[in-house]
Amino acid sequence: MSNVYEESLLLHEKYKGKLEIKSKVPLNDARDLSLAYSPGVAEPCRKIQQNQEDIYKYTSRGNMVAVITDGSAVLGLGNIGPYAALPVMEGKSILLKQFANVDSFPICLNTQDPEEIIKTCKLLAPSLGGINLEDISAPRCVEIERRLVEELDIPVFHDDQHGTAIITTAALINACRLTKKRIEDLVVVISGTGAAGSSIIKMLHKLGIKDIIAYNITGIVHKSKEKTYDPLLIEILEITNKNNKLGNDTLEYALEGADVFIGVSAGGIVNKNMIAKMNKDPFVFSMANPTPEIMPEEAKAGGAYIIGTGRSDYPNQINNVLAFPGIFRGALDCRARKINEEMKFAASLALAYLIEEEDLNKDYIVPSPFDNRIVTAVRNAVIDAAIKTNVARIK
Amino acid sequence: MSNVYEESLLLHEKYKGKLEIKSKVPLNDARDLSLAYSPGVAEPCRKIQQNQEDIYKYTSRGNMVAVITDGSAVLGLGNIGPYAALPVMEGKSILLKQFANVDSFPICLNTQDPEEIIKTCKLLAPSLGGINLEDISAPRCVEIERRLVEELDIPVFHDDQHGTAIITTAALINACRLTKKRIEDLVVVISGTGAAGSSIIKMLHKLGIKDIIAYNITGIVHKSKEKTYDPLLIEILEITNKNNKLGNDTLEYALEGADVFIGVSAGGIVNKNMIAKMNKDPFVFSMANPTPEIMPEEAKAGGAYIIGTGRSDYPNQINNVLAFPGIFRGALDCRARKINEEMKFAASLALAYLIEEEDLNKDYIVPSPFDNRIVTAVRNAVIDAAIKTNVARIK
Repeated sequence: MSNVYEESLLLHEKYKGKLEIKSKVPLNDARDLSLAYSPGVAEPCRKIQQNQEDIYKYTSRGNMVAVITDGSAVLGLGNIGPYAALPVMEGKSILLKQFANVDSFPICLNTQDPEEIIKTCKLLAPSLGGINLEDISAPRCVEIERRLVEELDIPVFHDDQHGTAIITTAALINACRLTKKRIEDLVVVISGTGAAGSSIIKMLHKLGIKDIIAYNITGIVHKSKEKTYDPLLIEILEITNKNNKLGNDTLEYALEGADVFIGVSAGGIVNKNMIAKMNKDPFVFSMANPTPEIMPEEAKAGGAYIIGTGRSDYPNQINNVLAFPGIFRGALDCRARKINEEMKFAASLALAYLIEEEDLNKDYIVPSPFDNRIVTAVRNAVIDAAIKTNVARIK
Repeated sequence: MSNVYEESLLLHEKYKGKLEIKSKVPLNDARDLSLAYSPGVAEPCRKIQQNQEDIYKYTSRGNMVAVITDGSAVLGLGNIGPYAALPVMEGKSILLKQFANVDSFPICLNTQDPEEIIKTCKLLAPSLGGINLEDISAPRCVEIERRLVEELDIPVFHDDQHGTAIITTAALINACRLTKKRIEDLVVVISGTGAAGSSIIKMLHKLGIKDIIAYNITGIVHKSKEKTYDPLLIEILEITNKNNKLGNDTLEYALEGADVFIGVSAGGIVNKNMIAKMNKDPFVFSMANPTPEIMPEEAKAGGAYIIGTGRSDYPNQINNVLAFPGIFRGALDCRARKINEEMKFAASLALAYLIEEEDLNKDYIVPSPFDNRIVTAVRNAVIDAAIKTNVARIK
């Protein structure tokens, strides 16, 4: 892996960052200037003043997203602050452009106070068609996103929460399609209850999975610990561990008799013996980055049947880039007031059913990021769901 | 003029705004993705975490400006709010790119509270190489800019204040070069004491003009009215009207015996009889937009010798685009901590002396916006001044 880091550094240095802007209109002479700027520009201003919705007709707002972070939970690097987070935000911006032609710019906020973050996002909204929150730590991220979804009428989406959840859900649907296991019968163990883990738990609960056991650094999420839990963990507690399993309070114990392991926690914490204690032919989605909870070779040795990771060098890459470009494309195109649960779930289904049943195999349960059908499929599904749930402003 | 408005509207509708983003790096396969985004992007993040200055090496920050408004004083349209202001901000962004290859994005803030504007700009700073404040009303703009210049270590520049001042100063220098009048002997009347007017007054005062008379909707700026003045007008009062002229408190009275009229106020408030009462061969820079204080034909009929406007359809266009692109180019290239008075004055001189003395004539005292020598000349002058005044971080 060291090579990819060195090469990445050279790439970033060569181009001095990854993002630039471009004029969509000609600017070659005094006439062009008088149309794009003074005095001509006064006319679209007047139109928007008369009818605020005309902002979508005469400006780039309808296609313009901000990728906003406070630098508190960047990749696997932790709380590295807003300056060091900028390369990731630029990366997100160019992926949005490349995969879905969504324009965006990176904003790294010099605060980690949730109220200041919420306030700032609201102040920035008039020039934005949507907000992609990024790399904000849990549980703060959940409250920040919830408030912004409530208080703004443009789509706000925290990809670290929902991106992984949407793709994990798609992967699980396809693992079941392939193996004929029934979603509602699965016992699922999730390691990690941060941004991604909490969203996965909520989404799988809505999907109909009845038995979810959550695990984090304090052990198995269990009602005996309720007094020490923040509101997010209490929410998780309410929909997990229906049989009050605790045992010796280890991940190993939790995995006994489980059908699915989902890891969004830390590298190397699962071994093949733990996998061997799961039910027959388990699904193991081990997504800690860059080192998974268990490496695919070892998971296989423990008996795992379907294996996914976050890595591009193994099959079944659970990669957020499968979801967020199409989700924003759809939300912007129908001018959605928000991105709701139905839209996220529609994105999961669209991703899953992009693969025909006869093409599914244990090394192909999620599409490749460069499958060029993805964005359109996700976009269309998201728009349909937005219209059905009355959050689309244009149809 | 109606045609330019209709055409501008069509242009804005055709392209849905004027701005898009673009990736500077390739993004065509999984390898590209692993370098521009996860996992490779972790490496520039780590480098910046270790040494914050590396942000200029590995990100676009060093070339990235935000064009920020609250929509309180947009063009000649007044307080039309943040939504209706967006077309102007997009215009500014693409001009920065076209003329000086400076990247930028438009931010229209949903507040007109100065403290909230200041706070927000400070929170946005980690991803910005500089801030272009735009179309914020006086006197608030002066305090907002002053505070940000003090409290941030990136260049902050309110173009409505200083852009017009820099170019008006250049025009006045060249008018004197052409006519052999001495700067220090001139009696200057300025109509308008808002963002542009107040900055012009301060700059001409520093240039050595001893007799400046300021006029606004309350009449001639005069010490008898001091109790009604805000801090900005008190500042103006201190450096103007040294002979305490008041008379019948009209612009006509102020202009009697003046050498220069500078209008940054309202269309049509000056007539040829008023010009006729000025000293022989006066300079008339009548820059209200789109209708000047006096049209060039009428100013000429009143005896004006050198005439400038803000319009592209008459000679001597006092156009901000002559200054701000080169100023930002210079400030970013030397990583200036601020844009100080010396740098602004250097920009004026560079603009003025771009025209050789033998090429000057009464219809050519400022360069054309499309003279491709401008940005480099302004940039170099700004960098020299930044280095001399110790605000440049690289040399």
